[in-house]
Amino acid sequence: MIDYRAFYAGRPVMITGGLGFIGSNLARLLVDLGADVMLVDSLIPDYGGSLENIRGIEDRVRVNVADIRQQTTMNYLVQGREVIFNLAGQVSHIDSMRDPYTDLEINCRSQMTVLEACRRNNPGVKVVFAGTRQIYGKPDYLPVDENHLVRPTDVNGINKAAGEQYHLVYNNVFGVRGCSLRLTNCYGPRQLVKHNRQGFIGWFIRRIVEDQEIEIFGDGMQMRDFVFVDDACDAFLRAGASDACNGQAVNVGGLEPIKHKDLVELMIEVANTGRRRYVEWPAEKKAIDIGSFYADSTRFRELTGWEPTTTLREGLTRTIAFYREHLQRYL
Amino acid sequence: MIDYRAFYAGRPVMITGGLGFIGSNLARLLVDLGADVMLVDSLIPDYGGSLENIRGIEDRVRVNVADIRQQTTMNYLVQGREVIFNLAGQVSHIDSMRDPYTDLEINCRSQMTVLEACRRNNPGVKVVFAGTRQIYGKPDYLPVDENHLVRPTDVNGINKAAGEQYHLVYNNVFGVRGCSLRLTNCYGPRQLVKHNRQGFIGWFIRRIVEDQEIEIFGDGMQMRDFVFVDDACDAFLRAGASDACNGQAVNVGGLEPIKHKDLVELMIEVANTGRRRYVEWPAEKKAIDIGSFYADSTRFRELTGWEPTTTLREGLTRTIAFYREHLQRYL
Repeated sequence: MIDYRAFYAGRPVMITGGLGFIGSNLARLLVDLGADVMLVDSLIPDYGGSLENIRGIEDRVRVNVADIRQQTTMNYLVQGREVIFNLAGQVSHIDSMRDPYTDLEINCRSQMTVLEACRRNNPGVKVVFAGTRQIYGKPDYLPVDENHLVRPTDVNGINKAAGEQYHLVYNNVFGVRGCSLRLTNCYGPRQLVKHNRQGFIGWFIRRIVEDQEIEIFGDGMQMRDFVFVDDACDAFLRAGASDACNGQAVNVGGLEPIKHKDLVELMIEVANTGRRRYVEWPAEKKAIDIGSFYADSTRFRELTGWEPTTTLREGLTRTIAFYREHLQRYL
Repeated sequence: MIDYRAFYAGRPVMITGGLGFIGSNLARLLVDLGADVMLVDSLIPDYGGSLENIRGIEDRVRVNVADIRQQTTMNYLVQGREVIFNLAGQVSHIDSMRDPYTDLEINCRSQMTVLEACRRNNPGVKVVFAGTRQIYGKPDYLPVDENHLVRPTDVNGINKAAGEQYHLVYNNVFGVRGCSLRLTNCYGPRQLVKHNRQGFIGWFIRRIVEDQEIEIFGDGMQMRDFVFVDDACDAFLRAGASDACNGQAVNVGGLEPIKHKDLVELMIEVANTGRRRYVEWPAEKKAIDIGSFYADSTRFRELTGWEPTTTLREGLTRTIAFYREHLQRYL
């Protein structure tokens, strides 16, 4: 197995969604590895991208504000890049049901834009797509592996699945090497905490840091796995440096699944602030909820040697410490 | 089980792609059942829609030339319809790889247009979507049932899968009743024979009727199942009249699978014209070929009582007779 970290020294890479949560954390790792890092981000308000996220590395990355939906722009920007971490996306499930077209444009059509740009202007590039476990929908069995049917429960999941599949077809048919990492719930510093439409964990962390009350929907017995952002970024680095995953979509899950209620208790314990209350499920959220979910990442581990190493307690401690220091900049 | 044929007497229905191959055959059945039939078709050249297809029933249907990509148009047209047979699509796999955006617009985005029109203007409607077995890709096992992974080998398959999934999500979340019929290779009178970019069977029938040579790619040993268009239309009628399939995507396969080479021999035998030659696979087609495929339709049979009844010999005989009489109108 190659030294995937050394691979990036001097390497021209691009991160779409590079000012977002995972993208900016990945950028930090890549500049430390000596990569030539270009961040492409549309900075659409509410989506999570922010110049705050690259505070301290501004001088070591090139920021290009652009929308990946723009074909001519992407045709230009992809040129000369050797690895593209394709993380730009609309993340909110609720928004996708209110405004399905915008979700389609960003999560589905724009992926074709990126890939067509590569096919026509940089066919030798490697593209690593940020997929999501959301596409599986309500699981038939646990843990969920890649043999599980893809059966999204919302428009966001459908569009993310299509965006992922374009990458695999462009790999198989056009030789634009690509793979997809189906990420489980990811958390850590720089995640969006401004509103609660991008999953609950960022919102919960904010409320706890503010010493406010959290609402747990239902009985809180559903289980989930969580991956700390540094572990997720390590998965991207490995996938980008290796051809082992080309043409595949693989799960990137967390260490141990945990009950929703236990996660909240752990957060409150780690923070020593905040409190929780049990409430009924809001109808809009219940309609697209998938119950318990956790992923089996065996395939990706075997292909790349990846292992998540950050325990939930440690990850939450670091995340809460980050927002204790920086919350005002993220509101 | 309700009398699904009686269900349509006086019933206002719409067929998108209604001047196309399956759409127009379905229209013929529906007018005979006394339905109030509106056909919506964009009449895009090369896609298969033609006024020839409704010759003899012109006075018993309402034709509205429109493109399902047009939201405001669809908002109006769906009103008052009780069943929509949603068959409009771009069918060519090869075209989808040459011009992926058009395929996306027609097979993916436009399905959202139809469904948003229903959600906002006619939420009580039932929508039956024409899915395709193409979305399964290269099978892991045969016959392929609905538990098989969806793993398209081309852009067309990805977009058709997304279009299908929108129907299921709109059923589950918004209550716009919908289901998808994953059709296997369909053949019969009124199928496109003008060019060879929409699958091989129409093209072969034309060549045989013209007493020309057919090219079989490779050794012709791959197996496929075929459904005669009247049997496919019977599946649509059953799905439209029943709520048994709501929220589901089900296979609609043929009677018996047959080797490609044996199919050609049967065609030539039935027609008593034409001849065949074995050639190498063209690279562009090989890249998206899926090898042997045939479907298991048990689920749909159990849900609706549907059975295909037309043997391949009988169906080919009727199809060849049709084109012997009408070929000039289809060139």
